[in-house]
Amino acid sequence: MADSYRLVLLRHGESAWNAKNLFTGWVDVDLTAQGEEEAIRGGKMLAERGLLPDLLHTSVLRRAIRTAHLALDAADRHWIPVRRSWRLNERHYGALQGKDKAQTLAEFGEEQFMLWRRSYDTPPPALAEDAEYSQFDDARYAQLPHELRPRTECLKDVVERLLPYWYDAIVPDVLTGRTVLVVAHGNSLRALVKHLDGISDDAIAGLNIPTGIPLLYELGADLRPLTAGGEYLDPAAAAEAIESVKNQGRK
Amino acid sequence: MADSYRLVLLRHGESAWNAKNLFTGWVDVDLTAQGEEEAIRGGKMLAERGLLPDLLHTSVLRRAIRTAHLALDAADRHWIPVRRSWRLNERHYGALQGKDKAQTLAEFGEEQFMLWRRSYDTPPPALAEDAEYSQFDDARYAQLPHELRPRTECLKDVVERLLPYWYDAIVPDVLTGRTVLVVAHGNSLRALVKHLDGISDDAIAGLNIPTGIPLLYELGADLRPLTAGGEYLDPAAAAEAIESVKNQGRK
Repeated sequence: MADSYRLVLLRHGESAWNAKNLFTGWVDVDLTAQGEEEAIRGGKMLAERGLLPDLLHTSVLRRAIRTAHLALDAADRHWIPVRRSWRLNERHYGALQGKDKAQTLAEFGEEQFMLWRRSYDTPPPALAEDAEYSQFDDARYAQLPHELRPRTECLKDVVERLLPYWYDAIVPDVLTGRTVLVVAHGNSLRALVKHLDGISDDAIAGLNIPTGIPLLYELGADLRPLTAGGEYLDPAAAAEAIESVKNQGRK
Repeated sequence: MADSYRLVLLRHGESAWNAKNLFTGWVDVDLTAQGEEEAIRGGKMLAERGLLPDLLHTSVLRRAIRTAHLALDAADRHWIPVRRSWRLNERHYGALQGKDKAQTLAEFGEEQFMLWRRSYDTPPPALAEDAEYSQFDDARYAQLPHELRPRTECLKDVVERLLPYWYDAIVPDVLTGRTVLVVAHGNSLRALVKHLDGISDDAIAGLNIPTGIPLLYELGADLRPLTAGGEYLDPAAAAEAIESVKNQGRK
């Protein structure tokens, strides 16, 4: 058995709707050119650090899948095994999907806006199954029973649907002693970090994860971090990006 | 049980060394810009035909992996499960890897050249483990026992190392009734087609598979093609490309 295990988390690079300041959730938008560059830079950081992933887990959303492709290609690890799951998807943003963040802030006010964005257990209003940005006719979820498919989610919901995949799919890979890379989303990674670091329901509101900067966790035999919060491979860039995420919806 | 099963074969688009007319084999070269376009076009053909892959198998070589990414992205099927195996790799070209095809033809003469390129059971000279284009220090093969790793291969060798993966990994997927896409290489696909269509050791020499054009096989319950040779989604382009492959090494 290894003394410690290595898990690397990577949030996808900027997407078209990050750039447009729209709530995205499960809508399957692509990376921007800047997002592609972030992904490639993230891959180069992994290579420079000698932190070469052996196994990959991603969501089923294009922005995470492409980030993984680009990062692994840059690290010459394009050939590693990959598994994808909807359980790593971004939080489903309900009826806010497709809406402008600044407009939503103006319309509903600071308190309601922050409640939807950062409260642990208050989801936005549910999205109707036949709404424009619903995913109810999306072939990639065709094998998911109806009752499992979200119409909206709060972070608590994300934790609950993510943890089965953590325990059943990622942990067994981590326990092989190989380096496991998880490429996912702002909120699915916050959910995972909340679990790993044992962050309280209140304190998680203040945690943001920047795009494109690999976050290394060394885990002990109990699968808890040896260093709380892990280690960003580029700590200065991470600190700067975290500040700018906080100001989203205000530009 | 389904009445028939659907298997789609796709040879990667033009690679940097196809363009330079070099023997490639297991050397992990990338696609050219033309190769990328071929991959995207192949994906669009799948979408236009409504032939949407549910599962993907690729080799562990970048040109096949990237072709699959690009084709599936174009068909909005980037999210399907994927498995990769060295058993789908291109034929290992032994000591010819990295050599110019025209120069090799000039140096060794037509008879020897065609024997290496198209004979069923005559491999090129073996490549030394420490040679420039050997893959003996390549991390992606680290878990392959030494005796399993080729130093050169003839097509017969490719058939023998491919079939276990066909039977153990691809066939079970095909038998689920879902559409299975295999993105691989000129010679690993020739090996598979030889098996599917029951082509003789002699006749296989005359069979070429063009790059970037999906080849659909509908298979019966015995996993044999309902139509010998399958069906190219763009038959005219396939016929033209097959002609030009025949002339490789002669430009």
